[in-house]
Amino acid sequence: MKLHLGGFHDCTAPSSDKIFIKATGGGAYKFADLFKEKLSVSLDKEDEMECLVTGANFLLKAVHQEAFTYLDGQKEFAQIDPNDLYPYLLVNIGSGVSMIKVDGDGKFERVSGTSLGGGTFWGLGRLLTKCKNFDELLELSHQGNNRVIDMLVGDIYGGTDYAKIGLSATTIASSFGKAISDNKELVDYKPEDISRSLLRMISNNIGQISYLNALRFGLKRIFFAGFFIRGHAYTMDTISVAVNFWSKGEAEAMFLRHEGFLGALGAFMSYEKQCLDGLTVNKIPQRFPISVSSAGNKIYCSMNGKSNGNGNESIECTVYGT
Amino acid sequence: MKLHLGGFHDCTAPSSDKIFIKATGGGAYKFADLFKEKLSVSLDKEDEMECLVTGANFLLKAVHQEAFTYLDGQKEFAQIDPNDLYPYLLVNIGSGVSMIKVDGDGKFERVSGTSLGGGTFWGLGRLLTKCKNFDELLELSHQGNNRVIDMLVGDIYGGTDYAKIGLSATTIASSFGKAISDNKELVDYKPEDISRSLLRMISNNIGQISYLNALRFGLKRIFFAGFFIRGHAYTMDTISVAVNFWSKGEAEAMFLRHEGFLGALGAFMSYEKQCLDGLTVNKIPQRFPISVSSAGNKIYCSMNGKSNGNGNESIECTVYGT
Repeated sequence: MKLHLGGFHDCTAPSSDKIFIKATGGGAYKFADLFKEKLSVSLDKEDEMECLVTGANFLLKAVHQEAFTYLDGQKEFAQIDPNDLYPYLLVNIGSGVSMIKVDGDGKFERVSGTSLGGGTFWGLGRLLTKCKNFDELLELSHQGNNRVIDMLVGDIYGGTDYAKIGLSATTIASSFGKAISDNKELVDYKPEDISRSLLRMISNNIGQISYLNALRFGLKRIFFAGFFIRGHAYTMDTISVAVNFWSKGEAEAMFLRHEGFLGALGAFMSYEKQCLDGLTVNKIPQRFPISVSSAGNKIYCSMNGKSNGNGNESIECTVYGT
Repeated sequence: MKLHLGGFHDCTAPSSDKIFIKATGGGAYKFADLFKEKLSVSLDKEDEMECLVTGANFLLKAVHQEAFTYLDGQKEFAQIDPNDLYPYLLVNIGSGVSMIKVDGDGKFERVSGTSLGGGTFWGLGRLLTKCKNFDELLELSHQGNNRVIDMLVGDIYGGTDYAKIGLSATTIASSFGKAISDNKELVDYKPEDISRSLLRMISNNIGQISYLNALRFGLKRIFFAGFFIRGHAYTMDTISVAVNFWSKGEAEAMFLRHEGFLGALGAFMSYEKQCLDGLTVNKIPQRFPISVSSAGNKIYCSMNGKSNGNGNESIECTVYGT
């Protein structure tokens, strides 16, 4: 997101010189002082869940080929009729995971979640490997082999399937379970194998809990988004396999091209609400034109604020797709 | 389990001198050669899920005060009418976790499970701490504080609750999530804090997935058993809190006093089936008396095999409660 003139004037108080920008999520709290001190910009905190849902609804309706499935390395764009979008489950994987049942614009409920999220992957990964950042750890998982450290069904049952209950020999019986019996120390395991096991453990768990919640509420679609995914093929593949495995092929995981930007988009769109009290939604485009255009894998959306009489302030956000 | 004469003669082949004992689970595969070599005893492998269910059904029907709830340090025995036992969910936490819907004697289905089980706790714990065994790691968790390493809701939202969606400031938002931003190495964290975080992460996750499955199949009771629990107060408390949290107080976790012996009991009871083909279940007690008695926290169950004409072979199993 590129900020011109460091933000936006408070249009509800035209005489004020206070500059603010909308922000959401933990960062809106964490970086508030820094923004104030370094840029004299106040962060106007918007509700995280609301922003996520607003962002997701916007993208799913406005952007062609926003959602896709990913299985066995195959990416397939989904055609979603905007009139047949709801209800769906939005799974946002940040440090933790929120699972939100979305019934319409502004109609949603956080129905579940799990504390095993991106923060667990990177937190445990940081302690178990010498990786310096999240992307490095994620990248490492490509070359890893989780079978070195996970206990598989075959490891328990003498190399065979447990066919009677439908578990193949290669199903993970216990994540990190081989570390129990191996006479190895942490340094004896390759970081790439650890990364791969962690990624499978967390992605599979999220896929399972998401599916169980979709089933519980009769939701036909599950969209996975958030910083954890980052367009990473193996992450998406594991989540897809998990949803497929636990649903016995009856449900599909879907991903969003702009998966890391839902909250930011939703926060950006909340300017509308604040400055246009009393106007109907239909009138918003005339007063606050949000222009959305796409070229290749990028979306450009810009909103020009004119109501404060200045005309110079604008926020332009460029969201890069994958 | 105490073995007299190293096992049982194969009553289906009276002339055989082969001595065998019933066994189940991964150990029946893992230790088969060792038993053969050192004791000249063959392990006769019985289906693990079947043994677990047989053991659980037996205990829940035959043993007074077998099941109990555990919350906030309070243990309360449950009165369960044997005629109103089914259906229930049996969650067996070994290295991995199996979730079994039990509808009656011999009527069951493994409906779910998770790879995050006891093997994950001990495997990750072994890599992250210098603990030498599972019990030491479990014991350590008593003195630990998971807030040192877990990212709480309050850590994200400036110390406050996220009241709008019902999350208190002390709810774990991301297990091990604080390790992301702390400028610490593994050696800077106390093993007891790591153990506590691991225990909460895994127990909470099992509680959540169990509840979702109980809900899915309309099961009124969830019994937790398996080697992972070992009568450990904090483990039971975390599982109970998880079930209570995710069900909004509508479901209760229950535990079994002989939680580590379901499979062994079930395997033991499978002698009946093998040697009494053609007899109805009702006639079994006359031919193969299983005597069950209890004194204090112990159960004594013994079965004397007489069908092979020898009369000397007997298996006596003493199960110690907690």
